[in-house]
Amino acid sequence: MINRSAGPEILRLIDLLSKLPGLGPRSARRAALHLLKKPDQVLTPLAAALADAANKVQACSTCANFDTVNPCSVCSASGRDHAVICAVEEVGDLWAMERSGVFKGTYHVVGGALSALDGVGPDDLNIAKLVERAASPGVTEIILALNATVDGQTTAHYITDRLAHLPVKVTRLAHGVPVGGELDHLDDGTIAAALASRR
Amino acid sequence: MINRSAGPEILRLIDLLSKLPGLGPRSARRAALHLLKKPDQVLTPLAAALADAANKVQACSTCANFDTVNPCSVCSASGRDHAVICAVEEVGDLWAMERSGVFKGTYHVVGGALSALDGVGPDDLNIAKLVERAASPGVTEIILALNATVDGQTTAHYITDRLAHLPVKVTRLAHGVPVGGELDHLDDGTIAAALASRR
Repeated sequence: MINRSAGPEILRLIDLLSKLPGLGPRSARRAALHLLKKPDQVLTPLAAALADAANKVQACSTCANFDTVNPCSVCSASGRDHAVICAVEEVGDLWAMERSGVFKGTYHVVGGALSALDGVGPDDLNIAKLVERAASPGVTEIILALNATVDGQTTAHYITDRLAHLPVKVTRLAHGVPVGGELDHLDDGTIAAALASRR
Repeated sequence: MINRSAGPEILRLIDLLSKLPGLGPRSARRAALHLLKKPDQVLTPLAAALADAANKVQACSTCANFDTVNPCSVCSASGRDHAVICAVEEVGDLWAMERSGVFKGTYHVVGGALSALDGVGPDDLNIAKLVERAASPGVTEIILALNATVDGQTTAHYITDRLAHLPVKVTRLAHGVPVGGELDHLDDGTIAAALASRR
Protein backbone atom coordinates (compact mmCIF):
# COMPACT_ATOMS: atom_id res chain seq x y z
CA MET A 1 0.00 0.00 0.00
CA ILE A 2 1.52 3.28 -1.08
CA ASN A 3 1.78 6.03 1.46
CA ARG A 4 1.10 9.28 -0.35
CA SER A 5 1.86 11.65 2.49
CA ALA A 6 5.40 10.51 3.35
CA GLY A 7 8.46 11.57 1.37
CA PRO A 8 10.66 9.13 -0.57
CA GLU A 9 13.24 9.04 2.26
CA ILE A 10 10.61 7.80 4.72
CA LEU A 11 9.13 5.31 2.23
CA ARG A 12 12.59 3.92 1.52
CA LEU A 13 13.29 3.56 5.25
CA ILE A 14 9.99 1.72 5.79
CA ASP A 15 10.67 -0.50 2.79
CA LEU A 16 14.12 -1.51 4.06
CA LEU A 17 12.87 -2.05 7.62
CA SER A 18 10.04 -4.26 6.34
CA LYS A 19 12.64 -6.63 4.88
CA LEU A 20 14.04 -7.46 8.32
CA PRO A 21 12.91 -10.83 9.69
CA GLY A 22 10.09 -10.28 12.18
CA LEU A 23 8.93 -6.97 10.70
CA GLY A 24 6.10 -6.73 8.18
CA PRO A 25 4.91 -3.58 6.38
CA ARG A 26 2.81 -2.39 9.33
CA SER A 27 5.41 -3.00 12.03
CA ALA A 28 8.05 -1.44 9.75
CA ARG A 29 5.89 1.71 9.63
CA ARG A 30 5.62 1.71 13.42
CA ALA A 31 9.37 1.20 13.75
CA ALA A 32 10.08 4.04 11.29
CA LEU A 33 7.75 6.39 13.20
CA HIS A 34 9.39 5.39 16.47
CA LEU A 35 12.79 6.22 14.95
CA LEU A 36 11.62 9.56 13.50
CA LYS A 37 9.99 10.59 16.78
CA LYS A 38 13.28 10.20 18.63
CA PRO A 39 15.96 11.24 16.15
CA ASP A 40 18.68 11.92 18.71
CA GLN A 41 18.02 9.04 21.10
CA VAL A 42 17.22 6.27 18.59
CA LEU A 43 17.55 7.17 14.90
CA THR A 44 21.07 8.63 14.85
CA PRO A 45 22.60 5.98 17.18
CA LEU A 46 21.07 3.17 15.11
CA ALA A 47 22.34 4.73 11.87
CA ALA A 48 25.81 4.99 13.43
CA ALA A 49 25.70 1.41 14.78
CA LEU A 50 24.72 0.06 11.36
CA ALA A 51 27.45 2.05 9.59
CA ASP A 52 29.91 0.86 12.23
CA ALA A 53 28.89 -2.76 11.72
CA ALA A 54 29.06 -2.38 7.93
CA ASN A 55 32.58 -0.96 8.17
CA LYS A 56 34.09 -3.15 10.85
CA VAL A 57 32.33 -6.51 11.09
CA GLN A 58 33.50 -9.27 8.78
CA ALA A 59 33.27 -13.03 8.53
CA CYS A 60 36.22 -14.85 10.16
CA SER A 61 38.35 -16.45 7.41
CA THR A 62 38.78 -19.56 9.57
CA CYS A 63 35.34 -20.30 11.03
CA ALA A 64 33.03 -17.71 9.33
CA ASN A 65 31.90 -16.25 12.67
CA PHE A 66 31.12 -12.51 12.53
CA ASP A 67 33.62 -10.31 14.36
CA THR A 68 35.57 -7.09 14.02
CA VAL A 69 38.86 -8.99 14.09
CA ASN A 70 40.06 -11.71 11.74
CA PRO A 71 40.60 -14.45 12.89
CA CYS A 72 37.63 -13.93 15.22
CA SER A 73 37.90 -13.66 19.00
CA VAL A 74 36.94 -17.33 19.42
CA CYS A 75 39.52 -18.63 16.92
CA SER A 76 42.29 -16.43 18.36
CA ALA A 77 41.50 -17.08 22.04
CA SER A 78 44.41 -18.83 23.76
CA GLY A 79 42.20 -20.57 26.34
CA ARG A 80 40.17 -22.51 23.79
CA ASP A 81 40.72 -26.09 22.64
CA HIS A 82 41.69 -25.96 18.97
CA ALA A 83 41.61 -29.77 18.76
CA VAL A 84 37.80 -29.78 18.87
CA ILE A 85 35.77 -28.05 16.15
CA CYS A 86 32.03 -27.63 16.51
CA ALA A 87 30.23 -27.26 13.17
CA VAL A 88 27.03 -25.18 13.28
CA GLU A 89 24.68 -24.02 10.53
CA GLU A 90 24.57 -20.30 11.27
CA VAL A 91 26.34 -17.66 13.36
CA GLY A 92 23.17 -17.46 15.48
CA ASP A 93 23.71 -21.14 16.40
CA LEU A 94 27.31 -20.34 17.38
CA TRP A 95 25.97 -17.59 19.66
CA ALA A 96 23.44 -20.03 21.14
CA MET A 97 26.28 -22.50 21.86
CA GLU A 98 28.35 -19.74 23.47
CA ARG A 99 25.44 -18.66 25.65
CA SER A 100 25.29 -22.18 27.10
CA GLY A 101 28.89 -21.53 28.26
CA VAL A 102 29.85 -25.23 28.20
CA PHE A 103 31.83 -25.58 24.99
CA LYS A 104 35.49 -24.55 25.10
CA GLY A 105 36.59 -25.62 21.61
CA THR A 106 36.36 -23.69 18.35
CA TYR A 107 33.61 -23.43 15.74
CA HIS A 108 32.94 -23.75 12.06
CA VAL A 109 29.93 -22.01 10.56
CA VAL A 110 28.70 -24.13 7.64
CA GLY A 111 26.42 -21.36 6.43
CA GLY A 112 23.16 -23.31 6.21
CA ALA A 113 22.04 -26.86 5.46
CA LEU A 114 21.86 -28.94 2.29
CA SER A 115 18.42 -28.59 0.76
CA ALA A 116 17.22 -30.11 -2.49
CA LEU A 117 14.08 -27.98 -2.23
CA ASP A 118 15.98 -24.69 -1.89
CA GLY A 119 18.70 -25.78 -4.30
CA VAL A 120 21.46 -25.67 -1.68
CA GLY A 121 24.27 -28.08 -2.63
CA PRO A 122 27.58 -28.90 -0.92
CA ASP A 123 29.41 -26.24 -2.94
CA ASP A 124 27.06 -23.53 -1.61
CA LEU A 125 28.13 -24.31 1.95
CA ASN A 126 31.41 -23.81 3.81
CA ILE A 127 32.10 -27.58 3.95
CA ALA A 128 35.36 -27.91 1.97
CA LYS A 129 37.03 -25.56 4.45
CA LEU A 130 35.74 -27.71 7.35
CA VAL A 131 37.26 -30.85 5.78
CA GLU A 132 40.53 -28.94 5.31
CA ARG A 133 40.52 -27.86 8.97
CA ALA A 134 39.64 -31.40 10.11
CA ALA A 135 42.68 -32.72 8.17
CA SER A 136 45.13 -30.31 9.80
CA PRO A 137 47.42 -31.75 12.50
CA GLY A 138 46.19 -31.63 16.09
CA VAL A 139 42.47 -31.71 15.32
CA THR A 140 40.92 -34.72 17.09
CA GLU A 141 37.17 -34.22 17.06
CA ILE A 142 34.47 -32.63 14.92
CA ILE A 143 31.16 -32.08 16.72
CA LEU A 144 28.26 -31.74 14.29
CA ALA A 145 25.87 -29.36 16.07
CA LEU A 146 23.53 -28.96 13.13
CA ASN A 147 19.82 -28.36 13.58
CA ALA A 148 17.70 -31.46 14.26
CA THR A 149 15.72 -30.84 11.07
CA VAL A 150 15.67 -33.13 8.03
CA ASP A 151 18.00 -30.77 6.14
CA GLY A 152 20.31 -30.38 9.15
CA GLN A 153 20.60 -34.13 9.64
CA THR A 154 21.11 -34.71 5.90
CA THR A 155 23.97 -32.22 6.06
CA ALA A 156 25.40 -34.00 9.13
CA HIS A 157 25.34 -37.33 7.22
CA TYR A 158 27.02 -35.72 4.24
CA ILE A 159 29.76 -34.13 6.37
CA THR A 160 30.32 -37.43 8.23
CA ASP A 161 30.92 -39.12 4.83
CA ARG A 162 33.31 -36.38 3.76
CA LEU A 163 35.29 -36.81 7.01
CA ALA A 164 35.31 -40.67 6.95
CA HIS A 165 38.85 -40.93 5.52
CA LEU A 166 40.33 -38.71 8.26
CA PRO A 167 41.57 -39.89 11.67
CA VAL A 168 39.21 -37.50 13.53
CA LYS A 169 36.33 -38.54 15.76
CA VAL A 170 33.00 -37.27 14.41
CA THR A 171 30.29 -36.77 17.04
CA ARG A 172 26.84 -35.26 17.13
CA LEU A 173 24.86 -33.49 19.81
CA ALA A 174 22.97 -36.04 21.92
CA HIS A 175 19.25 -36.43 21.72
CA GLY A 176 17.80 -33.84 23.98
CA VAL A 177 17.57 -31.43 21.11
CA PRO A 178 13.84 -31.62 20.30
CA VAL A 179 13.29 -33.16 16.88
CA GLY A 180 12.21 -30.46 14.41
CA GLY A 181 13.55 -27.71 16.64
CA GLU A 182 16.22 -25.17 15.85
CA LEU A 183 19.29 -24.60 17.99
CA ASP A 184 18.79 -20.87 18.34
CA HIS A 185 15.40 -21.46 19.98
CA LEU A 186 16.66 -23.73 22.76
CA ASP A 187 17.23 -22.89 26.41
CA ASP A 188 20.85 -23.00 27.62
CA GLY A 189 20.29 -26.02 29.90
CA THR A 190 19.12 -28.22 27.03
CA ILE A 191 22.13 -27.22 24.95
CA ALA A 192 24.46 -28.02 27.85
CA ALA A 193 22.84 -31.44 28.41
CA ALA A 194 22.94 -32.34 24.72
CA LEU A 195 26.61 -31.33 24.55
CA ALA A 196 27.59 -33.36 27.63
CA SER A 197 26.06 -36.61 26.35
CA ARG A 198 27.20 -36.29 22.73
CA ARG A 199 27.81 -39.57 20.94
CA MET B 1 21.52 -12.36 28.16
CA ILE B 2 25.08 -11.40 27.31
CA ASN B 3 26.57 -12.75 24.16
CA ARG B 4 30.23 -13.45 24.83
CA SER B 5 31.25 -14.35 21.30
CA ALA B 6 30.09 -11.21 19.49
CA GLY B 7 32.07 -7.96 19.51
CA PRO B 8 30.81 -4.72 21.07
CA GLU B 9 29.72 -3.36 17.66
CA ILE B 10 27.39 -6.34 17.13
CA LEU B 11 26.08 -6.21 20.71
CA ARG B 12 25.34 -2.50 20.35
CA LEU B 13 23.52 -3.10 17.06
CA ILE B 14 21.40 -5.87 18.64
CA ASP B 15 20.68 -3.67 21.66
CA LEU B 16 19.48 -0.76 19.50
CA LEU B 17 17.42 -3.02 17.23
CA SER B 18 15.75 -4.62 20.27
CA LYS B 19 14.39 -1.19 21.24
CA LEU B 20 12.33 -0.94 18.06
CA PRO B 21 8.62 -1.67 18.57
CA GLY B 22 7.87 -5.23 17.48
CA LEU B 23 11.41 -6.53 18.02
CA GLY B 24 12.48 -8.25 21.24
CA PRO B 25 15.99 -9.45 22.14
CA ARG B 26 15.69 -12.67 20.13
CA SER B 27 14.19 -11.12 17.00
CA ALA B 28 16.75 -8.29 17.25
CA ARG B 29 19.51 -10.94 17.15
CA ARG B 30 17.91 -12.53 14.09
CA ALA B 31 17.57 -9.12 12.42
CA ALA B 32 21.23 -8.28 13.17
CA LEU B 33 22.40 -11.62 11.73
CA HIS B 34 20.23 -11.06 8.65
CA LEU B 35 21.87 -7.64 8.21
CA LEU B 36 25.40 -8.96 8.74
CA LYS B 37 24.86 -11.85 6.31
CA LYS B 38 23.96 -9.42 3.52
CA PRO B 39 26.12 -6.35 4.11
CA ASP B 40 25.87 -4.95 0.58
CA GLN B 41 22.21 -5.73 -0.12
CA VAL B 42 20.69 -4.91 3.29
CA LEU B 43 23.06 -3.50 5.93
CA THR B 44 24.66 -0.64 3.99
CA PRO B 45 21.41 0.53 2.32
CA LEU B 46 19.61 0.54 5.69
CA ALA B 47 22.46 2.48 7.33
CA ALA B 48 22.30 5.00 4.48
CA ALA B 49 18.49 5.26 4.66
CA LEU B 50 18.63 5.90 8.42
CA ALA B 51 21.36 8.53 8.05
CA ASP B 52 19.37 10.11 5.22
CA ALA B 53 16.22 10.21 7.36
CA ALA B 54 18.16 11.62 10.33
CA ASN B 55 19.60 14.39 8.17
CA LYS B 56 16.60 15.33 6.06
CA VAL B 57 13.33 14.42 7.78
CA GLN B 58 11.89 16.94 10.22
CA ALA B 59 8.56 17.70 11.85
CA CYS B 60 6.43 20.22 9.92
CA SER B 61 6.29 23.46 11.92
CA THR B 62 2.60 23.83 11.05
CA CYS B 63 1.08 20.36 11.52
CA ALA B 64 3.98 18.27 12.97
CA ASN B 65 3.84 15.73 10.12
CA PHE B 66 7.23 14.23 9.22
CA ASP B 67 8.61 15.33 5.88
CA THR B 68 11.81 16.48 4.19
CA VAL B 69 10.27 19.88 3.44
CA ASN B 70 8.88 22.41 5.90
CA PRO B 71 5.97 23.12 5.68
CA CYS B 72 5.25 19.50 4.78
CA SER B 73 3.93 18.35 1.41
CA VAL B 74 0.35 18.16 2.77
CA CYS B 75 0.41 21.69 4.25
CA SER B 76 1.98 23.19 1.12
CA ALA B 77 -0.21 21.30 -1.42
CA SER B 78 -2.32 23.74 -3.43
CA GLY B 79 -5.13 21.26 -4.04
CA ARG B 80 -5.96 20.74 -0.36
CA ASP B 81 -8.69 22.48 1.64
CA HIS B 82 -6.96 24.61 4.28
CA ALA B 83 -10.33 25.48 5.85
CA VAL B 84 -10.62 22.00 7.33
CA ILE B 85 -8.05 20.72 9.83
CA CYS B 86 -8.07 17.09 10.93
CA ALA B 87 -6.45 16.56 14.35
CA VAL B 88 -4.82 13.14 14.84
CA GLU B 89 -2.77 11.70 17.70
CA GLU B 90 0.29 10.51 15.78
CA VAL B 91 1.89 10.78 12.34
CA GLY B 92 0.97 7.11 11.83
CA ASP B 93 -2.70 8.11 12.15
CA LEU B 94 -2.16 10.85 9.55
CA TRP B 95 -0.71 8.20 7.23
CA ALA B 96 -3.71 5.94 7.90
CA MET B 97 -6.07 8.82 7.00
CA GLU B 98 -4.10 9.51 3.82
CA ARG B 99 -4.24 5.85 2.84
CA SER B 100 -8.03 6.00 2.92
CA GLY B 101 -7.70 8.71 0.24
CA VAL B 102 -10.96 10.46 1.23
CA PHE B 103 -9.79 13.47 3.20
CA LYS B 104 -8.68 16.52 1.21
CA GLY B 105 -8.11 18.99 4.07
CA THR B 106 -4.99 19.47 6.18
CA TYR B 107 -3.84 17.84 9.41
CA HIS B 108 -2.64 18.61 12.88
CA VAL B 109 -0.62 16.00 14.76
CA VAL B 110 -1.39 16.39 18.47
CA GLY B 111 1.48 14.11 19.44
CA GLY B 112 -0.42 11.68 21.67
CA ALA B 113 -3.38 11.74 24.04
CA LEU B 114 -3.94 13.16 27.51
CA SER B 115 -3.20 10.48 30.08
CA ALA B 116 -3.29 10.88 33.85
CA LEU B 117 -1.68 7.44 34.17
CA ASP B 118 1.28 8.28 31.94
CA GLY B 119 1.48 11.87 33.21
CA VAL B 120 0.67 13.42 29.84
CA GLY B 121 -0.92 16.86 30.33
CA PRO B 122 -2.16 19.46 27.80
CA ASP B 123 1.21 21.22 27.78
CA ASP B 124 2.94 18.01 26.69
CA LEU B 125 0.81 17.92 23.54
CA ASN B 126 0.70 20.11 20.45
CA ILE B 127 -2.74 21.55 21.40
CA ALA B 128 -1.97 25.29 21.82
CA LYS B 129 -0.80 25.41 18.20
CA LEU B 130 -4.03 23.70 17.09
CA VAL B 131 -6.12 26.34 18.90
CA GLU B 132 -4.00 29.03 17.25
CA ARG B 133 -4.54 27.49 13.81
CA ALA B 134 -8.28 27.11 14.48
CA ALA B 135 -8.47 30.84 15.33
CA SER B 136 -6.82 31.94 12.09
CA PRO B 137 -9.10 33.39 9.39
CA GLY B 138 -10.58 30.99 6.83
CA VAL B 139 -10.58 27.90 9.06
CA THR B 140 -14.14 26.57 9.29
CA GLU B 141 -13.91 23.06 10.71
CA ILE B 142 -11.75 21.00 13.04
CA ILE B 143 -12.23 17.24 12.71
CA LEU B 144 -11.09 15.39 15.83
CA ALA B 145 -9.85 12.07 14.46
CA LEU B 146 -8.40 10.87 17.74
CA ASN B 147 -8.31 7.20 18.71
CA ALA B 148 -11.54 5.75 20.13
CA THR B 149 -9.78 4.93 23.39
CA VAL B 150 -10.56 6.48 26.79
CA ASP B 151 -7.48 8.71 26.54
CA GLY B 152 -8.23 9.67 22.94
CA GLN B 153 -11.82 10.63 23.75
CA THR B 154 -10.73 12.54 26.87
CA THR B 155 -8.36 14.49 24.65
CA ALA B 156 -11.16 15.12 22.13
CA HIS B 157 -13.37 16.49 24.95
CA TYR B 158 -10.56 18.71 26.17
CA ILE B 159 -9.81 20.08 22.69
CA THR B 160 -13.56 20.69 22.09
CA ASP B 161 -13.63 22.80 25.27
CA ARG B 162 -10.55 24.75 24.20
CA LEU B 163 -12.16 25.49 20.82
CA ALA B 164 -15.61 26.38 22.23
CA HIS B 165 -15.03 30.16 22.04
CA LEU B 166 -14.07 30.06 18.37
CA PRO B 167 -16.48 30.24 15.41
CA VAL B 168 -15.26 26.92 13.97
CA LYS B 169 -17.32 23.77 13.67
CA VAL B 170 -15.84 20.92 15.73
CA THR B 171 -16.68 17.42 14.48
CA ARG B 172 -15.56 13.90 15.31
CA LEU B 173 -15.22 10.76 13.24
CA ALA B 174 -18.55 8.90 13.20
CA HIS B 175 -19.05 5.69 15.06
CA GLY B 176 -17.79 2.99 12.84
CA VAL B 177 -14.39 3.25 14.48
CA PRO B 178 -14.47 0.19 16.77
CA VAL B 179 -14.48 1.25 20.44
CA GLY B 180 -11.10 0.53 21.99
CA GLY B 181 -9.43 0.33 18.59
CA GLU B 182 -6.61 2.44 17.25
CA LEU B 183 -6.79 4.34 13.99
CA ASP B 184 -3.61 2.93 12.58
CA HIS B 185 -5.05 -0.60 12.80
CA LEU B 186 -8.18 0.08 10.75
CA ASP B 187 -8.90 -0.87 7.17
CA ASP B 188 -9.27 1.99 4.71
CA GLY B 189 -12.99 1.36 4.10
CA THR B 190 -13.87 1.79 7.77
CA ILE B 191 -11.91 5.04 7.89
CA ALA B 192 -13.68 6.30 4.78
CA ALA B 193 -17.13 5.41 6.20
CA ALA B 194 -16.38 7.03 9.55
CA LEU B 195 -15.17 10.18 7.80
CA ALA B 196 -18.23 10.45 5.54
CA SER B 197 -20.74 10.25 8.42
CA ARG B 198 -18.84 12.47 10.86
CA ARG B 199 -21.07 14.40 13.26
